[in-house]
Amino acid sequence: MRLKPCGDRVAVKWLEPEEKTAGGIILSSGSKEKPQIGEVVAVGPGGMIDGKEVKMEIKVGDKVLLNKYSGTEVKVDGEEYTIARQFDILATV
Amino acid sequence: MRLKPCGDRVAVKWLEPEEKTAGGIILSSGSKEKPQIGEVVAVGPGGMIDGKEVKMEIKVGDKVLLNKYSGTEVKVDGEEYTIARQFDILATV
Amino acid sequence: MRLKPCGDRVAVKWLEPEEKTAGGIILSSGSKEKPQIGEVVAVGPGGMIDGKEVKMEIKVGDKVLLNKYSGTEVKVDGEEYTIARQFDILATV
Amino acid sequence: MRLKPCGDRVAVKWLEPEEKTAGGIILSSGSKEKPQIGEVVAVGPGGMIDGKEVKMEIKVGDKVLLNKYSGTEVKVDGEEYTIARQFDILATV
Amino acid sequence: MRLKPCGDRVAVKWLEPEEKTAGGIILSSGSKEKPQIGEVVAVGPGGMIDGKEVKMEIKVGDKVLLNKYSGTEVKVDGEEYTIARQFDILATV
Amino acid sequence: MRLKPCGDRVAVKWLEPEEKTAGGIILSSGSKEKPQIGEVVAVGPGGMIDGKEVKMEIKVGDKVLLNKYSGTEVKVDGEEYTIARQFDILATV
Amino acid sequence: MRLKPCGDRVAVKWLEPEEKTAGGIILSSGSKEKPQIGEVVAVGPGGMIDGKEVKMEIKVGDKVLLNKYSGTEVKVDGEEYTIARQFDILATV
Repeated sequence: MRLKPCGDRVAVKWLEPEEKTAGGIILSSGSKEKPQIGEVVAVGPGGMIDGKEVKMEIKVGDKVLLNKYSGTEVKVDGEEYTIARQFDILATV
Repeated sequence: MRLKPCGDRVAVKWLEPEEKTAGGIILSSGSKEKPQIGEVVAVGPGGMIDGKEVKMEIKVGDKVLLNKYSGTEVKVDGEEYTIARQFDILATV
Repeated sequence: MRLKPCGDRVAVKWLEPEEKTAGGIILSSGSKEKPQIGEVVAVGPGGMIDGKEVKMEIKVGDKVLLNKYSGTEVKVDGEEYTIARQFDILATV
Repeated sequence: MRLKPCGDRVAVKWLEPEEKTAGGIILSSGSKEKPQIGEVVAVGPGGMIDGKEVKMEIKVGDKVLLNKYSGTEVKVDGEEYTIARQFDILATV
Repeated sequence: MRLKPCGDRVAVKWLEPEEKTAGGIILSSGSKEKPQIGEVVAVGPGGMIDGKEVKMEIKVGDKVLLNKYSGTEVKVDGEEYTIARQFDILATV
Repeated sequence: MRLKPCGDRVAVKWLEPEEKTAGGIILSSGSKEKPQIGEVVAVGPGGMIDGKEVKMEIKVGDKVLLNKYSGTEVKVDGEEYTIARQFDILATV
Repeated sequence: MRLKPCGDRVAVKWLEPEEKTAGGIILSSGSKEKPQIGEVVAVGPGGMIDGKEVKMEIKVGDKVLLNKYSGTEVKVDGEEYTIARQFDILATV
């Protein structure tokens, strides 16, 4: 993975709404207005962010709940990712 | 429970407006504009949140008063939850 | 009292505008736009709130002046209360 | 005086626009848009306010210049007062 | 001078736009939209202001450049002054 | 390079949307609404920025993902650059 | 130079858009919407500004890139200057 998020950011790849994760969790709604599930594919180094020490708790491979509009969509090597700050992740599933 | 809230967040399951809690408290209003009662089903780890140490005071099983619009609704495994920050909880009942 | 305010919040029960308090103070205006008098029925534990130590100065039984719109109205066990943060209380009377 | 302002608040009683103060100062404008002169009738205890230590410099009896819209008007025992934060007082006269 | 600014505030008396100051500086524009020149007639004590230590650098007699809308106009003893915070003064001339 | 960004700012030169970087990454979208890839051509010294110590992690030559509207476009010596704060860089690629 | 900026402010004199600086840099655009080049003619003392220690890095004689709308235009002794905070300067050229 060449995409390296800066600071306390993570890169997320959205899973299909109907996709069944390893643990059997299904996020049934495909609505863009509700948080969706994504897989973390890259994690920033954390450290001092805006004068505050941030430790990264999220790891590559985590399945996360995130509002679509919390992050920024990017397209690299033909693949789409969302880059969001760790703080915006609501939960892991 | 597979849903693990991040940081100082908690996951809440709304109780029916007329539901009688163990202690006999009834939240009679079903209005969406007033805070409603919910049961906490999962609690984040707390810790350093936005540069401030947050200790989790809310526990799984607590009945809480929370504004509907304070949190974010998510649907996981066919069940609906609201994920909110501990700070937004008005009171326990 | 089963309602337990969180953090630096207090629960207030509005007194009737014409109600004479023990000390003889009358808040004559019934207007919703002016602060009204209420009796504190429950007080949160205080502590670290948003990274700041808050000591509760308000006690159960205090008569307080509070803007109606400062707090959030809740209805529990058929009784209406306003939950507000200690900081929003203008004065005791 | 039964009205006890909370935190860094003070209670002010407006003087008549034409009123001559002890020191001979006259605030000639009766316009509501300009700051007006009032006499401080009660002062809060100060202390830690929103995580910051506030020492009360204003004393009961001070004549102060204050924007009408800076404070909140209250009516107690048939008398009208304005409750404002010490920080909002522009000057003493 | 009876007007005593509070905290980090100063009282300023506007000079006429065409007025030549001792040092020969002329602020030629009389437009209200540009900063104007005034003479400082009173200075607050500084100290802890909103949790921050402020040392007063401006002295009585300083000629200062200040946006008209930065301060609050007051009228005391028939004289008009502008009360502004030290931070709002752009420059001395 | 004569352009020296101040504080925690960096100067970025946009790469063509179809440009292939050394590592083979292609940012296929030419849309202005999505972050675009740029090459860092100058980096500020960091240090105390708005009261917070900022260490520069971005180096000259880094390929970065940045929202077009995050920075300010400047034209120097006939060349266009975007000056942005390090914090606004989403990721390196 | 009689104009003495306060705090972390600097006074800037705009250069003509086509003006060639000593180092040969030309800011070709005369558009008001893009940052323009100016020469610093006076620098404030820095120090504690709004509770934060600010060290002045910009010196008199520096050529700086600055958004026109970042500062405040003043006219002193018939000359126009822009007074801006050091933080608003994008780069030196």
